[in-house]
Amino acid sequence: MRRHNLALVLRAIVERGPVSRAAVAAYVGLTKATVSSIVEELLVAGFVAEVGRENRGEAGRPGTVLAANPNGPVGVGLEINVDYIAVCLVDLAGEVRRVDVRRGDNRELPRGDVLRIAAELVATTLVNARTAGLKPLGLAVALPGLVDEPSGMLIVAPNLGWRDLDVPGALRAAGLSAAAAELPIAVGNEANFAAIGELWYGHGPELGDFVHVTGETGIGAGLVVGRRLFGGAHGYAGELGHVTVEPDGPGCGCGARGCLEAYAGQEVLARAAGLSGVTGTSVGNPDGLGALIEAAAAAGQPEVLAALRRAGWALGVALTDVVHLLDPDAVVLAGLCARLAAWLVPELRAQLTARTIGGVPPRTRVEVSQLGPYGALRGAAGSVVMTLLANPMAEVA
Amino acid sequence: MRRHNLALVLRAIVERGPVSRAAVAAYVGLTKATVSSIVEELLVAGFVAEVGRENRGEAGRPGTVLAANPNGPVGVGLEINVDYIAVCLVDLAGEVRRVDVRRGDNRELPRGDVLRIAAELVATTLVNARTAGLKPLGLAVALPGLVDEPSGMLIVAPNLGWRDLDVPGALRAAGLSAAAAELPIAVGNEANFAAIGELWYGHGPELGDFVHVTGETGIGAGLVVGRRLFGGAHGYAGELGHVTVEPDGPGCGCGARGCLEAYAGQEVLARAAGLSGVTGTSVGNPDGLGALIEAAAAAGQPEVLAALRRAGWALGVALTDVVHLLDPDAVVLAGLCARLAAWLVPELRAQLTARTIGGVPPRTRVEVSQLGPYGALRGAAGSVVMTLLANPMAEVA
Repeated sequence: MRRHNLALVLRAIVERGPVSRAAVAAYVGLTKATVSSIVEELLVAGFVAEVGRENRGEAGRPGTVLAANPNGPVGVGLEINVDYIAVCLVDLAGEVRRVDVRRGDNRELPRGDVLRIAAELVATTLVNARTAGLKPLGLAVALPGLVDEPSGMLIVAPNLGWRDLDVPGALRAAGLSAAAAELPIAVGNEANFAAIGELWYGHGPELGDFVHVTGETGIGAGLVVGRRLFGGAHGYAGELGHVTVEPDGPGCGCGARGCLEAYAGQEVLARAAGLSGVTGTSVGNPDGLGALIEAAAAAGQPEVLAALRRAGWALGVALTDVVHLLDPDAVVLAGLCARLAAWLVPELRAQLTARTIGGVPPRTRVEVSQLGPYGALRGAAGSVVMTLLANPMAEVA
Repeated sequence: MRRHNLALVLRAIVERGPVSRAAVAAYVGLTKATVSSIVEELLVAGFVAEVGRENRGEAGRPGTVLAANPNGPVGVGLEINVDYIAVCLVDLAGEVRRVDVRRGDNRELPRGDVLRIAAELVATTLVNARTAGLKPLGLAVALPGLVDEPSGMLIVAPNLGWRDLDVPGALRAAGLSAAAAELPIAVGNEANFAAIGELWYGHGPELGDFVHVTGETGIGAGLVVGRRLFGGAHGYAGELGHVTVEPDGPGCGCGARGCLEAYAGQEVLARAAGLSGVTGTSVGNPDGLGALIEAAAAAGQPEVLAALRRAGWALGVALTDVVHLLDPDAVVLAGLCARLAAWLVPELRAQLTARTIGGVPPRTRVEVSQLGPYGALRGAAGSVVMTLLANPMAEVA
């Protein structure tokens, strides 16, 4: 009961703050005395803070108003992707408090070096967090591959060329700082984290059931059903990048042929843009290869436009499979697919329409994420604070 | 509370019968007095019956034992498929009490004629049910197409060539008997009904999350997640037959090209077996075209074997997409796919293995349904009794 009420009051303050104790009590349906006592605990724990006084335009003493503590807990997200490593902090209100990115082709480095760079980046971010008065709660690691979440094992990440890695153990071995080593470490698939990022911080609430497509070097998807991530029996659901477009199509990094990734992955598009062999480091562009591909398309480079039409077609074929199998309310394009949506969507929609059963108009909407890059990173960090919001007593008691 | 207990006691008797009142009380955790009073209601309603006396090998008066009433409620299932119409009765214990099948190519008849034949078959079955002392509770109609369940509208059934049909209204207009017209009518997709049939009456409990593939003229799938049917946002999920195998492949009845159905549907296999234009009526075979295709394969007819290899390959490509997107514990082959499993599975498994990400062995098992034909019909009739089992008070009160 106490656990439930603590979570209820904290969520009300986080979602509706700045808000008075009286307004919280009215909203959650508890007495003012109960709410005041719970608020006291939340203040002591540092989860909420008094952020001012309400102006009710009435006579009498104005009450103090509460909000998520801006100097309170944060979740730490770490994303290790093919051409960057990034760390971010998200607070209880879902605000991104800091992002640190280090670009570079991680395929060119030994795995241990990549992990060491990642550990250093986490350490730097944590020093900055503490300087800013923030309290890191835990670390969530987003990886572009199949992850066994209960054990934190990365089974395989074809685009990185990694497999069979105990991620928390390897990060600790790579030299996490003392502050980082104290944190609980969770590991998950980047596309899944991106989908929950969209659910919590993007268009989630209006989308219904959706398939969230994130494209970078690889292409992945996160499935959200009934406002929850649908992970499948082993947590490997949503591997959209390896849906077959043409069984005898171009080779894919996964070892098979004709997978969606082999048509719409960043590498393929970069090659068409004459950016073969170009890495984030070498381009020195803070937005990486995606920005260069976008620029080439905007400049009307014919090879890039042709590659984008083909990628849009392949996305349409694969997403038609998704629609036939899962019947979602919406498909959301994010990451590189969002950046390049203007060029991808026409062919994508044409396939969705051409391949509906018996010409029935498609019922699945196609939407473009507004979250920008690092949606996975934000979802990862957010997953840490969501754990706290679901059960604050674990941290209070 | 009473509603909950009524359902609890009824389900205990149905699942564990023959069983004494005392054993039911111990199992559900209610007092013997409460159970006896509920049993009285269930006896009056005719849902359960006293089916004998228990022999406890002890002194004293033996107690009576209870079971689902063998002369009690039944669900009525009606399946209208491309080359047959079938009706069946399923009782509370899940036993099939009667199946009536009428073979014939329904594409050759006007829709009104097919509906009239279906209405007649339902009428005949209901007369037989009442003669046998059974009490029909409701009618569930299984159709090979997209169904809007809340309204009972068939949106489109490409293989029948039907669209935009108010199914309950059309059946009533086609002349349902008075007894049938009294029944509530539900409408659903045949593959979905087949999947819940497998869940309730087949291997369901041991399968975990599964994708249930039913093949006849069309190919469909029902997705079972967490022991419930996953219908998608509009109830159209599981349209496996229209997953793309090759975007420029053979034409499909749905209007697109290269759908799984165009490789593994019954028509394609029948054509390879030299059975083109042969219908259920003309062959006079009670098991229909499927049995003839099986016989041709068993006889080693090279064209049939080649078509089956290609069908198995296409199934493997499409099911790999399913595995990548949904990550189920198992794929279950049913209907025609179960009948022909010996010839389909080798190529199917080869594709599943060849197309896993980074060579990680597939975690999804491939199983073959033991339910035989008419799984959809059984699931449809079963859905009616399951509604009663979930809320018996609706019928008692």
